[in-house]
Amino acid sequence: MTCDDLKVKDFDLASVYVSDAQFNRNIFFDTSPQAVRLYLLYNHWVLQVLLFFFILVDLSLAIFEEPAVVPLPLWVTMLVELLCLLAFTVRLVHYAKVIPRDKFWKDPKNICIIAILMLTLVDIIIYGALKAASCYGVRWSRVLRPLLLVNVTEGRQLRRAFRSIRNALPQIFYVFLLFMFSVLIFSLMALKLLGKRGLKTTDGAPYFTNYMEIVFDLYVLVTTANSPDVMMPAYNASYFYAIFFILYILINTYIFMSVFLAVVYNNYKKYLKEEVRQLVRTKRHKMVRAFAVLQEQRQEGAEPVVSQANWNQVVRLVHPDISNAHRELLWSVSDHKNQGCIGRVAFVQLADLLNIEVITLKSRPHPFHSLCPALYLSAPSHLICWLVQHRAFVIVYDLIILVNAVFIGLDEENPMIANSEWGFLSLYLLEILLKLYVFEPRAFFSRHNFWNWFDTIIVVSALIATIINSAIKSSGGYSSRQILDIVFILRVLRLIRVVDSIKRFRTIINTLIRIGPAILTFGQLIIVVYYIFAMVGMELFKGKVKYYEDTSDPASEYCGNPLLKGTPFAHLNYCKNNFNSVVSSFILLVELTVVNQWHVLSSGFTTVTHVSARIFFIFFHIMVVIVIINIFVAFVLEAFFVEYSVEKSDLQTSLEKKIKELELAVAEERLEDNLVNAMETCDNDLGTGQSANTKPTLMFKIASRRYRTVDALLQRMFEADLDPEDFAETDDPEAQNNRNFANPTFSSV
Amino acid sequence: MTCDDLKVKDFDLASVYVSDAQFNRNIFFDTSPQAVRLYLLYNHWVLQVLLFFFILVDLSLAIFEEPAVVPLPLWVTMLVELLCLLAFTVRLVHYAKVIPRDKFWKDPKNICIIAILMLTLVDIIIYGALKAASCYGVRWSRVLRPLLLVNVTEGRQLRRAFRSIRNALPQIFYVFLLFMFSVLIFSLMALKLLGKRGLKTTDGAPYFTNYMEIVFDLYVLVTTANSPDVMMPAYNASYFYAIFFILYILINTYIFMSVFLAVVYNNYKKYLKEEVRQLVRTKRHKMVRAFAVLQEQRQEGAEPVVSQANWNQVVRLVHPDISNAHRELLWSVSDHKNQGCIGRVAFVQLADLLNIEVITLKSRPHPFHSLCPALYLSAPSHLICWLVQHRAFVIVYDLIILVNAVFIGLDEENPMIANSEWGFLSLYLLEILLKLYVFEPRAFFSRHNFWNWFDTIIVVSALIATIINSAIKSSGGYSSRQILDIVFILRVLRLIRVVDSIKRFRTIINTLIRIGPAILTFGQLIIVVYYIFAMVGMELFKGKVKYYEDTSDPASEYCGNPLLKGTPFAHLNYCKNNFNSVVSSFILLVELTVVNQWHVLSSGFTTVTHVSARIFFIFFHIMVVIVIINIFVAFVLEAFFVEYSVEKSDLQTSLEKKIKELELAVAEERLEDNLVNAMETCDNDLGTGQSANTKPTLMFKIASRRYRTVDALLQRMFEADLDPEDFAETDDPEAQNNRNFANPTFSSV
Repeated sequence: MTCDDLKVKDFDLASVYVSDAQFNRNIFFDTSPQAVRLYLLYNHWVLQVLLFFFILVDLSLAIFEEPAVVPLPLWVTMLVELLCLLAFTVRLVHYAKVIPRDKFWKDPKNICIIAILMLTLVDIIIYGALKAASCYGVRWSRVLRPLLLVNVTEGRQLRRAFRSIRNALPQIFYVFLLFMFSVLIFSLMALKLLGKRGLKTTDGAPYFTNYMEIVFDLYVLVTTANSPDVMMPAYNASYFYAIFFILYILINTYIFMSVFLAVVYNNYKKYLKEEVRQLVRTKRHKMVRAFAVLQEQRQEGAEPVVSQANWNQVVRLVHPDISNAHRELLWSVSDHKNQGCIGRVAFVQLADLLNIEVITLKSRPHPFHSLCPALYLSAPSHLICWLVQHRAFVIVYDLIILVNAVFIGLDEENPMIANSEWGFLSLYLLEILLKLYVFEPRAFFSRHNFWNWFDTIIVVSALIATIINSAIKSSGGYSSRQILDIVFILRVLRLIRVVDSIKRFRTIINTLIRIGPAILTFGQLIIVVYYIFAMVGMELFKGKVKYYEDTSDPASEYCGNPLLKGTPFAHLNYCKNNFNSVVSSFILLVELTVVNQWHVLSSGFTTVTHVSARIFFIFFHIMVVIVIINIFVAFVLEAFFVEYSVEKSDLQTSLEKKIKELELAVAEERLEDNLVNAMETCDNDLGTGQSANTKPTLMFKIASRRYRTVDALLQRMFEADLDPEDFAETDDPEAQNNRNFANPTFSSV
Repeated sequence: MTCDDLKVKDFDLASVYVSDAQFNRNIFFDTSPQAVRLYLLYNHWVLQVLLFFFILVDLSLAIFEEPAVVPLPLWVTMLVELLCLLAFTVRLVHYAKVIPRDKFWKDPKNICIIAILMLTLVDIIIYGALKAASCYGVRWSRVLRPLLLVNVTEGRQLRRAFRSIRNALPQIFYVFLLFMFSVLIFSLMALKLLGKRGLKTTDGAPYFTNYMEIVFDLYVLVTTANSPDVMMPAYNASYFYAIFFILYILINTYIFMSVFLAVVYNNYKKYLKEEVRQLVRTKRHKMVRAFAVLQEQRQEGAEPVVSQANWNQVVRLVHPDISNAHRELLWSVSDHKNQGCIGRVAFVQLADLLNIEVITLKSRPHPFHSLCPALYLSAPSHLICWLVQHRAFVIVYDLIILVNAVFIGLDEENPMIANSEWGFLSLYLLEILLKLYVFEPRAFFSRHNFWNWFDTIIVVSALIATIINSAIKSSGGYSSRQILDIVFILRVLRLIRVVDSIKRFRTIINTLIRIGPAILTFGQLIIVVYYIFAMVGMELFKGKVKYYEDTSDPASEYCGNPLLKGTPFAHLNYCKNNFNSVVSSFILLVELTVVNQWHVLSSGFTTVTHVSARIFFIFFHIMVVIVIINIFVAFVLEAFFVEYSVEKSDLQTSLEKKIKELELAVAEERLEDNLVNAMETCDNDLGTGQSANTKPTLMFKIASRRYRTVDALLQRMFEADLDPEDFAETDDPEAQNNRNFANPTFSSV
C-alpha cells in the first residue's frame, strides 16, 4: 500500500470531488478538513429528504389555510410555517459554513432564499397583526413558496429547466408579437367586414361589433376552443366569410403554433447543449482535482499516476456498498494496460464509470434443486419447466387475460361473473407460482424485472382486496365502495400485462418508462407554475363561484352568484371549477391547460369580477400552453428520437462500448483468477449459502440506469454533438479554472 | 466552333437531360430523335397547364353535380367529364409514345390512371343508365378523381408526400394500437368506477354506463373537444375522480400525442433523406449522360471534356431566355481554371448552377437624371433624396400607418373619418412617388422587392376602389357592400407593411414566405384527402340536415330533421355544417380538422343516420389530425430549423459559397473585358437606351429562388446529412445504372 503518504482527509477530499462529479453537483465548497466533513454531512441523504419534507409541508399549508380544504386555526398554520422557515434557515447556515463566504454572497440562489425567508416572515407578521385587528389581509408571500423548490441546491434540474425557458423567452417574445399583430389585423378586418352587417349570435347578442371582444374571440379561436361557434353567424350569412376564418385558423393556429414549437424546440436544444457542455467540463475538472489530491510520481519526470490501492480507497468511500467484483471490473476498464496504476485521462473516466450500473448475474441453482434434487430433476418437473418456458404458455395466459377483460366488462352483480373472479385470481396466482418454481426466485424478483414485480404486486393486492371485500360483504351484507373501487382498479390494471407479450409494444412502453423520470422535472416545473397561479387565483376569485352539493338549492342553478344567471358557465354546470381551495384551483388550472372551454371558464370568472380578469387567464395560457407545454413536447420529441435511434441502430455510447469489450476480455481471460475469487470471497451482500457447491458462471450486464437521471439523458442526447476538444481540455485544468471554476483549491495540493 | 461533329439531335438530347436534372424529372424517355422531340413537347408548359386545367375542371364538377351548389343538367356534367377523360387519355397516349413500351406498363402510376379512366367510364355509363330508368344510383367513381392529381407525371411532390405517409404508417399503427389499448383499459376502469354510481350528466342522462359510449367519450377527450364537460359529473361527485381524468389526459393527450408526432417526424425525416439521396443520385446520373452526349476527346488518353461552345449551345437550349452575362458567369464558375473546356465533375454541377437564380444588378442612372440633369442634381432634389433615404422617413410612415389603424377602427360613418381616408391615401401615394423619384423605377419594381410590389398594388387598388365607391355613393346615394368590403380589406392589408420595418419580424416573415410554396404540397395533399372524404360524406349524409335561410320557419329550429330536436347540434345552430354541397362539405371537414366540437358535429350526423356513422368521423380524425397534421407540423419544424440555423450561422451551401468567391473574382479581374462587354452588347432583354452614356457598375446577387421549390428545400434540409460518396459515384454511372436507373440510354452514345 502506498497510502501512508496520503492522509484520511485527502481521501475524504478526493471522494467528495468524485462523488460531486458523479452526481453533477457544482458546489464550490471549502477544502479545509472540517468544511469537507460538514459538506459530506450536507450531502447526506437524510438531510436532503428532510429538506424536501419541509418544502412539501410548506407547500401543503395551502390546503389548511384560508380558503381551505381542511380549515385549521391560523396560529397552527403560522407555527408550522415558522418551523419550516427555521428548517430552511438552518440548512442555509449549514451551506454557508460549507462554502467560502464570498462565494456564498455571490450566489443569486442564496440571496433568493434569504429574500424569500425575510419576505415570508414580514408577511406572517403583517398578516397576523391584521387578522388580530380583524382587518382584511392578503397572504401574498405564499406565491414565493414554490420558488424555494427552485432555489435549494438540490433543485438543479428545475433551475436548468427555468433557465432554458428564460433563454427561449426573447425569441418566443418576437414571434408572439408578430402573432399578436396578425390577430389584431385579422380582428380589425373582422370588425370592418362583419361588424356592420347586423348579425346576431345564437343567443341574440350583436356579433363582432366591439373591437376588444373580437380580439379576445379570435385569440380564443387560435386555441380552437370556440372553433365553429364563433364562425357560425358569419357562415350562416354567407359562404364567403368561412374563407376568412379558415385563413385565420391556417395562419394563426397551424402555422404560428408550429413556429412557436419550432422556436421553443430550437432554443431548448441549443441552450441545453451549451449547459451540458459546461456540465461535462465541470465534471472533468472535479475529477482532475481529485486526481491532483491522489496523484503520486512513480518515476522522476514521468506523468503522475494514481495507484490501485488509493483508487480502491476512494471508490470505497464514494460507494461504500459497491461489490468487490464490480470495483475490480471498473479498475480493469480504467487500467486496461494492467499496469497497477492509472494516469489522469483514465482516472477522469471514473465518474462516468460509476454512473453505469453494472448488474452482476450469477446463474444460481433453484432452491428446490438444492433442497430436494430428486423431485426437482424428475420427469414431471422437467415437463412443467418445459411447459412454462414454452411460447404457448404466454399465449394461453394472454387469452385468459382477454377473457378476463370481457368478464370485467360484464355486470359484476351476476353471481356467476362474481365467482369467476376467484377462478381468474387463482389462475394468475398459479402462473406466478409456476414461474417461481421454474425460475430462480431472486432472479425472478431482481430489480430490473419490472413486469414480474408489477404482476405479483397487482395479483397479491387483488387477492387481499377481494378477500377483504368478501369478508365485509358476507358479514355486513353490503360491500364497501372504496374497497370495491380498489378491487376494480386492480383487476383492470392486471390487463396491462398483455402489452409485455408483444415485442413492438414492449419497445414503445420501455421507451416511455425510461423517459418517465425525466418527465418528472417537468412535473416539478408545472407544480411551481400552477402553485403560483393558484395562489394568485385564490386571492382574486375565492368565494365568487360556489358549488352546492344539494342540487335542489335554487342557488346551485347559478353557482351561488346571481351574476352568473343564464351564462354558459352556469348552464354547463361548471360551478365546481372554482378557486375556493387549492385542490379545486389545481384542477381548474389543469382544465385551462387542456384549453378546451377555457373561454367559458374564464368568462365565468370575468362575469363575477371584471373583464380585466381575462388578463389572468390569457397570461396563464401564454405561460403554460405556449411556453411550457411546447417545451414539454420538445423534450419528449428529443428524448424519443434519442431512444428511437438507439433502438434502431443499436448504437452505444463510446464508454459503454469500451466496457462491453473489456467486460468480454475480463470474462475470457481473467474470469478464473482475480475476479471470481474476489466475488466468491467478498461478495457478502448476497447470501451465498448454497451457491458454494456448484460453480457459478458469472456474467456482467449493463443496466441502463444511466439514462434514468435527467442529467444523464441530457448528456446522452447531446453526446454526439459535444465538442471533442472538451477531452483535450482536461489536460489543462488551469485554463478551465479561469473560465468557469475560480475556486482556488489547488493551493491545498 | 467544334459543333460540326455534333448533330442537332445530340444537343436536343443533352438539353433534355440537363433540363430533367434541373427540374428533378425522372422519366425514362426513349432516346430516338422523334421521341426526344415528342418528349420536349410533352414537357411544354402549355400542355402541362392544360392538364392541370382539365384536372381542375374534373374536380370542380362536384360543384355542379347532385347535391350541387349550382345545379346543371346531368348530360352537361357527364359530357364535360367525358371531355376530361378524353384529355387525360390523349396525355397518357402521348406519354406512352415518349417512353419505351415495357417501361410504360411497368409503371404503377400509368396503370392507376388507366384504371381510374376505365372505372370512371363504367360508372358514367351505369349511372347514366340508372338515371335514365329513374333508379337510385351512386356516383362512386368521383372518389377516384383526386387520385389523378397524384398519378400524373407532374404530381411528383404529392406522390412523395403520400409515399412518406405510407412509409410512416406501420410505425404509427403500432403506437395507435397501444394508444387504443390504453383508451380501452381506461374506459373499462371508468365503467367499473363510475358506471354504478348512478351519476347523471347535465341533461339528466345516465353517466358512463355503456362501455362503447365511454370509449367514444374518452376518445373525444383525447382530442380535448369535450374536456371539462365529460369530467364534470364525476368531479361533482368527488374530487378523487378528477385524478382519473387528469391521469388519462396526461397519458393519452400529452404523452401519446407527442409520441405520435415523434414517430411521424422521425419516419418523415428518415424516409425523406433516403428519397432526396436518390433524387440527387438520379440527377447526377442524368448530367453524366448529357456529358456523355457532348463529350469530346481533346488529347489521346486524356479525360473527355465539353467545350465552351457546346456548353453554351446546351444552356441556350435549356434556358432560351438566359442573359449572356449570366451564362458567362456560370461558365466561369464551372471552368474556374479558365481552360476553355470542362470535365465531367464540373459539368455535373450545371443542373444545380441553373437552379440558383442570379440577379444581375446594374446601377443605372435615374430616368429624371437623363431627362433633365440640371433639375435632378439641384440642391432641393438632393434634399428630397436625403430625406427619403433617411431612417426617420420610415419611422414617420410607420407612425402614419399606426394612426391610420386607429382611424380604421373608428366608425367610418363619421364624415371626418371618411374624409381622412383620402388624406391617408394621398400620403401613401406620395410615399410611393417619392420613392420612385429617388430610386430607379426598374430597381424599385424588380422581381425580388416583395414589399414594394405589395405596397404599390395595395395602394393603387385601394385608390381605385375608393374612387369607384365614392362615385357609386354620390350617384346612387347608397354604397355597394361588396366594393366597401374590398376597400376595407385593402385598407387593413396596408397596415401589414409595418412588419417590414422591424428587422426581427422581417426575418420571421421571410422564413414563412420562403417555406410557403413548400407548404402548398401539403395543400394539395389535404385537398386530395378532403375531396375523397367529401364525396363519401355527401353520399352518406346529403340532405339529412338542412339549413333554412328563413329563421322564422319552425323547421330551422331542428335543421329540418325532427330527429335533431333538442340535440346540441341543433341547439348550437350548426345546421349549415352539412354535406349538402361540396363547398359546405369542405368547410365542415375543416371544422373537423380543427377538432373542437367535432363530437357535437359527428353526433348530429349519427343522430340522423346510425351510430356506426361515427366510424367515418373517427377515421377522418385519425387520417387527417393524427397523420397529416403531424406530418405538416414535422415539415414546418424541419423547414424552420433549416432556415433558422442559416439565419443564425450565415452558413451557405458549398455551391453558393463557391459562386460567391468566384463572383468576386469576376468582379475584380474580368469585369472590364469579357463580362461587361457581353452585357453591353447582348443583354437586349432590357432596354438600355440611356445607360450607354454612363459606365454601369455591375453586380451579381444570388436570389434564394433555389429554396422556393419543394425539392430544393428538401435537398437543402438534408444536404448536411447527404452521403459524401454520392459525389464519388458520379464517376461510375454503370454501377448506379444497375441500382435505380435501368434505362439503356448509353447505347445511343
